[in-house]
Amino acid sequence: MVKTLTLTEEEARKVADSLNYRHLNGTAIAVVQDYRTKEVLMVASVNRESVTKTLTTGYAHFWSLSRSQLWLKGETSGNYQLLMDFLVDCDGDAILFMVEPKGPACHTMSRSCFYRRREDLLNPGSSKH
Amino acid sequence: MVKTLTLTEEEARKVADSLNYRHLNGTAIAVVQDYRTKEVLMVASVNRESVTKTLTTGYAHFWSLSRSQLWLKGETSGNYQLLMDFLVDCDGDAILFMVEPKGPACHTMSRSCFYRRREDLLNPGSSKH
Repeated sequence: MVKTLTLTEEEARKVADSLNYRHLNGTAIAVVQDYRTKEVLMVASVNRESVTKTLTTGYAHFWSLSRSQLWLKGETSGNYQLLMDFLVDCDGDAILFMVEPKGPACHTMSRSCFYRRREDLLNPGSSKH
Repeated sequence: MVKTLTLTEEEARKVADSLNYRHLNGTAIAVVQDYRTKEVLMVASVNRESVTKTLTTGYAHFWSLSRSQLWLKGETSGNYQLLMDFLVDCDGDAILFMVEPKGPACHTMSRSCFYRRREDLLNPGSSKH
C-alpha cells in the first residue's frame, strides 16, 4: 500500500496561494515525474483549485486549458497518479509532482507523453509509438 | 568529451515547425532533465527560434518571457546545458531536453530550480536551500 501525501484544506490553500500563476489563463506549469523510475510522464497546467485538490486528496489534479475545467487525472481512464512528493521551482510558476502512476500517463496509452524523439519528427513515418 | 546532438539548420527548422506554440507569447514549455541522474532541473519557455538554435548548436536555448529575448542558458553564468536527447510530448506543446549540465541550473546556484518542498512553503523559514 502506497502512502500518498495529503494536507489539510488550510495547509493546502497556504501552499497553493504561495505559487505564481503567471501562465495561460492564470495557471502554473506542472511537470509529472515517476517517483521510482524518474521518467518524466507529462506536462499540464494547474490553477489554485487543482493544486489545493492535489494536496488534500493525494491524487494529481490539473486544470484543462481546452475544457476550462478541473481535471482529476484518471477520472475516466482509471490511470490515477498518486502524489508522493511535491516540489516548487525558484520563481514559483512551475511544480514538480512526483507520483506513483496507476497506468499510462498518455491518452495514447504510452507510459509517458514524451514518446517522440527528434528523429520521429524529422521522419514522421518512422515513429515507433 | 561529451558528444552533443546537432542537426542542420534545415532539419532543425523542420522539427521546430512541427511543435505547437500555444503557450504564453507563442511559446511551448521546455522541461530540462539531467540525462544521467534524471533529476528535473528547470522549466522554461521556448519559441521556434530557441528550438532551432538548441538543435543546431547542441546547447539549450530558451525564450525569456520577462526580457522577450533569446536566452542561451549559461551565456553569462557559464552553466551551459549540452543537449543529449530531445523528446516531444503527444500534443507537441511541451519538450523534454535531456542535458549534461555544466553547472547549477538555478540562478540561486542550486543544482535544480526545484529545491523547495511542500513543507518549505508551509513553513517558509525552514527552507534548507
